[in-house]
Amino acid sequence: MSSKAGTSVIYPKLAVIGCGLIGSSIVRAARAAGVVDEVTVADASPEHRQRIAELGYADLVTADPAEAVQGADLVVLATPVLAMSGAFAQAAAAMKPGATVTDVGSVKAAIAEALKPLIPENIFLVPGHPIAGTEYSGPEAGFAELFQNRWTILTPLARDDDPYLEAVQRLVDFWRALGANVDRMDVTHHDLVLAVTSHLPHLIAYNIVGTAADLEAVTQAEVMKYSAGGFRDFTRIASSDPTMWRDIFLANKDAVLEILGRFTEDLQALSRAIRWGEGDKLFDLFTRTRAIRRGIIAAGQESPEANFGRDHRAAP
Amino acid sequence: MSSKAGTSVIYPKLAVIGCGLIGSSIVRAARAAGVVDEVTVADASPEHRQRIAELGYADLVTADPAEAVQGADLVVLATPVLAMSGAFAQAAAAMKPGATVTDVGSVKAAIAEALKPLIPENIFLVPGHPIAGTEYSGPEAGFAELFQNRWTILTPLARDDDPYLEAVQRLVDFWRALGANVDRMDVTHHDLVLAVTSHLPHLIAYNIVGTAADLEAVTQAEVMKYSAGGFRDFTRIASSDPTMWRDIFLANKDAVLEILGRFTEDLQALSRAIRWGEGDKLFDLFTRTRAIRRGIIAAGQESPEANFGRDHRAAP
Repeated sequence: MSSKAGTSVIYPKLAVIGCGLIGSSIVRAARAAGVVDEVTVADASPEHRQRIAELGYADLVTADPAEAVQGADLVVLATPVLAMSGAFAQAAAAMKPGATVTDVGSVKAAIAEALKPLIPENIFLVPGHPIAGTEYSGPEAGFAELFQNRWTILTPLARDDDPYLEAVQRLVDFWRALGANVDRMDVTHHDLVLAVTSHLPHLIAYNIVGTAADLEAVTQAEVMKYSAGGFRDFTRIASSDPTMWRDIFLANKDAVLEILGRFTEDLQALSRAIRWGEGDKLFDLFTRTRAIRRGIIAAGQESPEANFGRDHRAAP
Repeated sequence: MSSKAGTSVIYPKLAVIGCGLIGSSIVRAARAAGVVDEVTVADASPEHRQRIAELGYADLVTADPAEAVQGADLVVLATPVLAMSGAFAQAAAAMKPGATVTDVGSVKAAIAEALKPLIPENIFLVPGHPIAGTEYSGPEAGFAELFQNRWTILTPLARDDDPYLEAVQRLVDFWRALGANVDRMDVTHHDLVLAVTSHLPHLIAYNIVGTAADLEAVTQAEVMKYSAGGFRDFTRIASSDPTMWRDIFLANKDAVLEILGRFTEDLQALSRAIRWGEGDKLFDLFTRTRAIRRGIIAAGQESPEANFGRDHRAAP
């Protein structure tokens, strides 16, 4: 793990475009790690800009992406997924030659496709995705520890020239300094993995909360009152930012529909087992899923303390 | 809330049949609250009996329900749902006249129907359901605070004679002494409410974990590694006791299938909206579900203390 004392500056100037939960956490974490000197922030929302100015962690707060990226060594796109290419189109020409642009979107293929034609020569595009977050949103929701012991997946372009590889490595170092473990992955595979581990769970959670709200025989007040039996966990997931999640489902349509199709097939088989009283089938599935949970715990993915030592030992 | 100092004994002798997470928590909570003098436990599992004996919180541990209930003022059936009538059939004749029998099953209509013909005269049946639990099971998983600030729903029979009403009130007092809030409800309505707030969420969680495990393109190791994006919450729910949940789905078949049917319809509409790029429909639903979450928080149903197994780090 990095400390301010032991770490030198990686990107003298950091620009963050879109400063909600993730963007503001990156700013705070980069400041805390001492890996940036200057921070500029662009955000389209006047309310966000006011809050960011009040929070005081940026040297410049502006509505104009082009103003924010001037002289920046790293530009992080942290808007909702569908707004990224528009924000970057405004900023691209103002970027410093040799700088890197990355993003934090939960979908990688669609973003890479949208950004590639906009990238000026001498600018390095390295798409990325920190798998971290909470159900809260907005600049005041961020915190410096958000990425600690979390995975950040980078999906570099198919380039193997030295300047590009150096830009990728510098971004890896940056994320590690923020406390994250870093993996590299192909964009298509990333989108399928995230469709399973994140997008489908959110879709299901949104759906079940919607179904419950529409019942006539059970009031919303009753659903809330007795939500401790499992439902409450779904409401937390289903309270994540609506714009962000709309964009994710639209941008990762194919992978989400593929996984959703399998989920629905399996659910119909389960429904049939209940209807016909096939207790053995239920018991077998429930035993299998319990074993998977134990696998996650055994793999150290569950306990905050015992977790993810891997990349941290290397740091001074 | 009750304290030992302020509470007198409510049931001099308590017998618990089936001593897993809930049964052992009742014993510990009743001891801690000082509302029982003597505790007997019957459990069909030799391993459970050995653990209970080692834990030392029962005055008698036996395999025989009839032995456990002798002289008991309150008998609590805390086996899996489908085992309750069998366990009670062994014990009924040995019960003390004037005693009360209750249960803790998550399904009420089927249990009441199964128990009613077995109840001797002068024994008061008051079915109940504490909405509390964790994903762990077995006697060592119980703890005295499990019911604090949780709801326990009682579904009394359609009787209004004074002795019965007194027996119900005594059971209300018992649960309150254990820290629970108590509601009364009709059995059918209980089963529908719980199908929404607990049974369907569990079914969905079991299903999604099963679907993920069966994918060829994404390995189980990857699913585990990147589970922080939402999936991990589902694995926790899907690690609940397989026997208990098999029984719940079989015993509450009609309500579960009814709610599941609505869920599936809604999910198909959502799937269609994704396929056709109808972002407004997605945004509207996600905004609505977020408001429901805020309603739960405003209603005080979400506090760090009252939340089991919480993990506030679900992320995209």
